[in-house]
Amino acid sequence: MASGRFYLFCMVLGSLGSMCILFTAYWMQYWRDGFAWDGSVHMFNWHPVLMVSGMVVLYGAASLVYRLPLSWVGPKLPWKVLHAALHLLAFTFTVVGLVAVFQFHNHSKITHLYSLHSWLGITTVIFFACQWSLGFAIFLLPWASQWLRSLLKPVHVYFGACILSLSITSVISGINEKLFFVLKNVTKPYSSLPSEAVFANSTGILVVAFGLLVLYVLLASPWKRPDPGALTDRQPLLHDRE
Amino acid sequence: MASGRFYLFCMVLGSLGSMCILFTAYWMQYWRDGFAWDGSVHMFNWHPVLMVSGMVVLYGAASLVYRLPLSWVGPKLPWKVLHAALHLLAFTFTVVGLVAVFQFHNHSKITHLYSLHSWLGITTVIFFACQWSLGFAIFLLPWASQWLRSLLKPVHVYFGACILSLSITSVISGINEKLFFVLKNVTKPYSSLPSEAVFANSTGILVVAFGLLVLYVLLASPWKRPDPGALTDRQPLLHDRE
Repeated sequence: MASGRFYLFCMVLGSLGSMCILFTAYWMQYWRDGFAWDGSVHMFNWHPVLMVSGMVVLYGAASLVYRLPLSWVGPKLPWKVLHAALHLLAFTFTVVGLVAVFQFHNHSKITHLYSLHSWLGITTVIFFACQWSLGFAIFLLPWASQWLRSLLKPVHVYFGACILSLSITSVISGINEKLFFVLKNVTKPYSSLPSEAVFANSTGILVVAFGLLVLYVLLASPWKRPDPGALTDRQPLLHDRE
Repeated sequence: MASGRFYLFCMVLGSLGSMCILFTAYWMQYWRDGFAWDGSVHMFNWHPVLMVSGMVVLYGAASLVYRLPLSWVGPKLPWKVLHAALHLLAFTFTVVGLVAVFQFHNHSKITHLYSLHSWLGITTVIFFACQWSLGFAIFLLPWASQWLRSLLKPVHVYFGACILSLSITSVISGINEKLFFVLKNVTKPYSSLPSEAVFANSTGILVVAFGLLVLYVLLASPWKRPDPGALTDRQPLLHDRE
């Protein structure tokens, strides 16, 4: 029953995540003249699509591997490998997304990394790289002691949630910035809320909704690998103590 | 010893929170010509200062009341009242901060609530109002059953953390947007990173650092009211199960 609800929740999350990617791609295709890989603004258009796909949707999916009831029984190693592999795929999307914006800036002689969006975004990607490398070294390679793993696990989960929050913050500031860049037309500015603005703002709200639902499953839901040492099963992480 | 570390952490948080407010106020005073309450852009300048003070720093402080070791012994009611009162103060700052931007928009005939920053910001404030009212009705008024309180507590903590994350996202997109608005000068645009841009970007990074540390104490630190029913004391919320 609890497991059924989880898969129902997963379907909602999957639909929402797909909508985040599709909406971003449609925004770039329909209002921003589509995609190319030539240093032009059409190359830039890959940036939002790849960052939303990599740093939000794939990252979110990768984070929830241990919440799958299937993963609660039997050996943990295959799930660890899946968790690491999905995150590596998310990181690959992210790097290609960064290449798209850096090459566009080079081509158009725009300064790199000046806005707060870019400062926060690049910090988030560096945190992601550190988190993945440390996670790989401590939790996947066989050399770290059980004591060290137990010590670092809550930090790993907390930091993982932080990175997702920072990704969402970067995406929101990026969409906001892009709309101020492109909707400058005096007769139809951003402030007159043309259809592009409503569509892109709604995409931002979808990204926030997806991120908050992932964080709910990760931090506060009852779907967890049962702890053999605990008195009660399925106690969510966020159960406070009265 | 654990309690000593908590108060040391509180000092770091207090310093960081004060810096967030002081940096925002200094930005508005030194580069944006200071404050007034007359519908002009000087009235707008209260908006970032009041939102950072209310929705981030005071909100963060109010969230951590139950993490004070002092609050772990004796009756809980005075701490509940303090928690609610500090959040109400944070909400008051927020409302005055909204009045500042709405009156500025009215005065300058700027459309209300068109940017993604404003959509997300107003959603966050509405969530905050719902969270406070529900928290007051369920946890402070004496009529809700213990069963209902236990059921809603993890949701209250999760939703409280979400609101802080959304506040940070709103602040970052707001700083980014303001800098694109005001640093348009062709000889010294935002992209040339003038001193105002470096200062305001750094203020944004300080706000993020403060928010993440508050979320650490709230969700993942060992500082919690001991659970009389638990086997072990001071187990952090984010301790996952191996």
